[in-house]
Amino acid sequence: MREVLAQAAFQLFLERGFERTTVDDIVARAGVGRRSFFRYFPSKEDAVFPDHERCLAEMTEFLAADDGGDPVGAVCDAARIVLRMYAANPEFSVQRYRLTREVPGLRTYELSVVRRYEQTLAGHLRGRFGEDGDGELRAEVIAASVVAAHNNGLRLWLRSGGAGDPEAAVDHALALVREVWGRSVAPAPAVPFPVSHGVEGEGDGEVIVMVARKGAPMWRVVQQIEAAVGES
Amino acid sequence: MREVLAQAAFQLFLERGFERTTVDDIVARAGVGRRSFFRYFPSKEDAVFPDHERCLAEMTEFLAADDGGDPVGAVCDAARIVLRMYAANPEFSVQRYRLTREVPGLRTYELSVVRRYEQTLAGHLRGRFGEDGDGELRAEVIAASVVAAHNNGLRLWLRSGGAGDPEAAVDHALALVREVWGRSVAPAPAVPFPVSHGVEGEGDGEVIVMVARKGAPMWRVVQQIEAAVGES
Repeated sequence: MREVLAQAAFQLFLERGFERTTVDDIVARAGVGRRSFFRYFPSKEDAVFPDHERCLAEMTEFLAADDGGDPVGAVCDAARIVLRMYAANPEFSVQRYRLTREVPGLRTYELSVVRRYEQTLAGHLRGRFGEDGDGELRAEVIAASVVAAHNNGLRLWLRSGGAGDPEAAVDHALALVREVWGRSVAPAPAVPFPVSHGVEGEGDGEVIVMVARKGAPMWRVVQQIEAAVGES
Repeated sequence: MREVLAQAAFQLFLERGFERTTVDDIVARAGVGRRSFFRYFPSKEDAVFPDHERCLAEMTEFLAADDGGDPVGAVCDAARIVLRMYAANPEFSVQRYRLTREVPGLRTYELSVVRRYEQTLAGHLRGRFGEDGDGELRAEVIAASVVAAHNNGLRLWLRSGGAGDPEAAVDHALALVREVWGRSVAPAPAVPFPVSHGVEGEGDGEVIVMVARKGAPMWRVVQQIEAAVGES
């Protein structure tokens, strides 16, 4: 019933436009009573995004099962749950993307949903980092970075009409966030850092020595250090 | 007139609640006609945030005058324009913060405004980075980071009841973003990187050699490299 209503609503939004479709139109098309609509959807906007509540619940559950590894990796993986929801139905997702861009009320609704994802991720990171010091700040900034990267990759795919593999663009975007933030918050590794690039380490192996080209951008330097660390 | 209306509206929102105040109540309090209200504000929500349009225009103007230096620094400075708008009127800002938290419609409105700031910053960064390669991705992720950091600092101050200097918290938050993203996108400096920590550079001064402690978090390493670069 929920799905029947959502489908009827979406067909009508595409045919007549969102603003010109009433809840009465929707229930007539679906062949049910008006009260049925409001049993499933608080508003017309909610019928356009029928899966976000389930997706938010899935994200919360996923994060609750976090085993205490890399926290940035965990929230990146949690963000991929949203991607999979979009990828499960490319045609619908692309049509909805186009509809949302045209209707201010739907854009606003989407902003609220995105904010809830962001707060879910930030809440998890706050729990991992602790609220002392910069824990809250780092949690919020990293959550915002993850959401922005995810949405950049997702939007690329939606703009392309849903062709090809959306995972690739999102993986690439999230890799940038992990590159920049990943190691900044991971626990210190149990093994000593290896010495890279043939330069001797000082002292008792408690240091990493790193040589980078003058023109190298900082993210490349970070990537190099991470690659060196990964060698162990 | 615009200010008189905004003040009358805000007083009434505090006295009666946002939902229970009508535009008729507001114009009666301000002693003007109903049409005057809509000449200045498209909706009741807009009257709660009377300064954002001006602030967005100021931000756009500020960024248009960007002299081509550090792009992350430029968008951090642009974000501070928003802070100054809040800081100019602490009592109003704190009352509005409390009101906004209680009224879902105002929270949604605020999300839309925040999104416009974020898009303004991202647009500027896109122009600086170019749209090829990861330019757009980096622009969006950095803009989101800047906004999240700014809002974290701003919120700390608002939650504290507007006591003390809001600049300090926001400066601290934005410093984290610059630390992590700053050098990743800055143009290569004109001078060779200095060799830090007494380790000799290889070749012709085209490298930076960097020694960090094993347990050091990545952001500290980045900070150290930046400090070394800054010595020149």
